[in-house]
Amino acid sequence: MTGTHDFYGVIAPVLTPFGEDGNPDAARFLTHAKWLLEDGCTGLAPFGTTGEANSLGLEERMGLLDTLIDGGVDPKILMPGTGLCALSDTVTVSRHAVERGCGGVMVLPPFYYKAVNDDGLFAYYSEMIEQIGDDRLKIYLYHIPPVAQVGLSVELVGRLIKAYPDTVVGLKDSSGDWDNTKALLDAYSGFTIFPGSEIFLLDGMRNGGAGCITATGNVNARMIRNVYDNWETDQADALQEEITSLRMTVQARPMIPMLKAIVAHYRNDPGWTNVRPPFLPLDAAEAQAGIAELSEQYGFELKAA
Amino acid sequence: MTGTHDFYGVIAPVLTPFGEDGNPDAARFLTHAKWLLEDGCTGLAPFGTTGEANSLGLEERMGLLDTLIDGGVDPKILMPGTGLCALSDTVTVSRHAVERGCGGVMVLPPFYYKAVNDDGLFAYYSEMIEQIGDDRLKIYLYHIPPVAQVGLSVELVGRLIKAYPDTVVGLKDSSGDWDNTKALLDAYSGFTIFPGSEIFLLDGMRNGGAGCITATGNVNARMIRNVYDNWETDQADALQEEITSLRMTVQARPMIPMLKAIVAHYRNDPGWTNVRPPFLPLDAAEAQAGIAELSEQYGFELKAA
Repeated sequence: MTGTHDFYGVIAPVLTPFGEDGNPDAARFLTHAKWLLEDGCTGLAPFGTTGEANSLGLEERMGLLDTLIDGGVDPKILMPGTGLCALSDTVTVSRHAVERGCGGVMVLPPFYYKAVNDDGLFAYYSEMIEQIGDDRLKIYLYHIPPVAQVGLSVELVGRLIKAYPDTVVGLKDSSGDWDNTKALLDAYSGFTIFPGSEIFLLDGMRNGGAGCITATGNVNARMIRNVYDNWETDQADALQEEITSLRMTVQARPMIPMLKAIVAHYRNDPGWTNVRPPFLPLDAAEAQAGIAELSEQYGFELKAA
Repeated sequence: MTGTHDFYGVIAPVLTPFGEDGNPDAARFLTHAKWLLEDGCTGLAPFGTTGEANSLGLEERMGLLDTLIDGGVDPKILMPGTGLCALSDTVTVSRHAVERGCGGVMVLPPFYYKAVNDDGLFAYYSEMIEQIGDDRLKIYLYHIPPVAQVGLSVELVGRLIKAYPDTVVGLKDSSGDWDNTKALLDAYSGFTIFPGSEIFLLDGMRNGGAGCITATGNVNARMIRNVYDNWETDQADALQEEITSLRMTVQARPMIPMLKAIVAHYRNDPGWTNVRPPFLPLDAAEAQAGIAELSEQYGFELKAA
């Protein structure tokens, strides 16, 4: 472990746009990714939960990563999600990301089988690392028990760091449980830890965190980045309060369709509301109500990409 | 819907053997599948939960299906699991099964995202059916909320049957909740319903069920088949009691490693104990204790394939 972080700041799990035919829309995807970097993101985590990654097929996932890199996004700031249920698929997608030069990969535990223990999960990550067998592989563990159900205990994280100190270099904690994030920060100094929501950005920074990887970074990176940049100033608490409040307003509705509705509204691009089943677009009136709340309460707007 | 069932009787979700290198062992897989048919299975459901299907990659899954069919197993009695998280992957694997002539496919709901509703799941299956666009597609819904967490409500099943009566033809109910199975049987006469355990075999048959699809069919098909064949006789309850009791003994230990330990023991083939992470083999002493219990309590043995 090093004292610096390869990834830091505000990282958005990039939304994945779909065309009317239900296929991923590579052009809109690239445009949005580049806009996020202009809006304040310091890195991008395509194919996270917010990116509907687990509704994307293997080939679609690798193809969209190629789109970003071939389109000029620096692979060093990319941390694509590559954790699938099956070890062999995880190896395929992760190897592709490494070969394309990605700075890291974000790896869910295998999430179908529920009756698994730390030894089994350790074996999974261990096999993954051994099979890829590439020093360039940098793994960011993805802990999101509310969705994946299978989580990564503080102890397991420590075992993985100890066994693979140059490979298992960070973690995104989307548990929503600050006590868990704090326990990780306290236990593993130098390990790169991102809370999975800007709600914990300031608390994280004050305890050695690296920033945050957050769904709302897709629409509000600038304000979140402002907290990151000013976390040591007197304004920090007031700034944090505002982004927390805005986040709560967004997440009061189904997060992914709501974020897509915001992008569609401000870019005047209705195609952005498309989601892939099992998700459905937000009811139009509901989306408008959410957008109106954001505008009235925070003067929120999204600049055109 | 018709009054007859294309699939019926005792169907085993075939165990998937792995070699020392961690790859699926196609030769052992084919041998075991053929043995299951000799042992009393009326059909096979490769790539179910028991088959560690969600630890198999896309290519591995399709390759192993080819192994069975190219190896002489009649595709009409095959109901491979083809339900993955991503619609596009589900379409790829299902289309392959249809093109290989499989009698049906067993399809999990998309199981990563948890905040989904019946409309979203309906859209998922609907898109799958439309995209495959092949009259030969016969879907058996796979309801297993203890593992997948995402389940299929009785109402949703009815909507799917109504919308696609020639395609959505059956369901495996692995809820472990007889009330749910009974509600389905009562609601959808003629629909092919399999309890996901032989514990409910006799109850199912007495209420219009089609048989059972059961993990322990991998080691105990003969006795389970005997209940199926004699469900209308005076012996039925006594026979059911015995298979229920044996099942409870097997499932007192982690099911998949225990089943593999049984096969390994009786075939004198230690390689059969291999599992893929996140599973781990059963501790050898624990496995021996389970095997001894089965032998002592039921005179259980597994004939060599």
